[in-house]
Amino acid sequence: MTIAETPTPPYYAVIFTSIQSADTHGYREMAEQMVALAEQQPGFLGMESARLDVGITVSYWQDLESIKQWKNHAEHITAQAVGKSRWYDHYTTRIALVERDYAK
Amino acid sequence: MTIAETPTPPYYAVIFTSIQSADTHGYREMAEQMVALAEQQPGFLGMESARLDVGITVSYWQDLESIKQWKNHAEHITAQAVGKSRWYDHYTTRIALVERDYAK
Repeated sequence: MTIAETPTPPYYAVIFTSIQSADTHGYREMAEQMVALAEQQPGFLGMESARLDVGITVSYWQDLESIKQWKNHAEHITAQAVGKSRWYDHYTTRIALVERDYAK
Repeated sequence: MTIAETPTPPYYAVIFTSIQSADTHGYREMAEQMVALAEQQPGFLGMESARLDVGITVSYWQDLESIKQWKNHAEHITAQAVGKSRWYDHYTTRIALVERDYAK
């Protein structure tokens, strides 16, 4: 995974910060499936992911409607439920409007 | 580092995604200094950081003015210049207004 090549702002970012539980059974496969599925969604613009003490996944979206549709996607709902009950001790999801960006 | 305990939105996020160069000399010390310094700035709300293929650091701020002041802080300007010329092959900085959040 690399730095997402996003369009000129404005667009949306979903910042998902998590602390994993001891139970990681099935996590990796599900994470890969969800990345592949997210990439197919309308309005998806890119994704960045890293992990150290915390995991941070930032996905970029065209608008709030595309975020809402992805949140309510049937397979994603299943993944979210298993994540909440099993894989994550804590997480915070933040929905943010990217107003500007600059890059090297 | 853990999940930032941010106030009720709205507030701002600065999403800094980077790919490091081969030259990491002095990077760690400077990164630690900058985290300590950022925490002392007016309007600073928290920070989250992780690295895998890419590094992602998200810092949270009360408003655009506090972000601007931190960007223009003398010691931070030096760190940014060394980072741009030496430590980072590529980076993207995104300034985003956090509109809502939810957590477990």
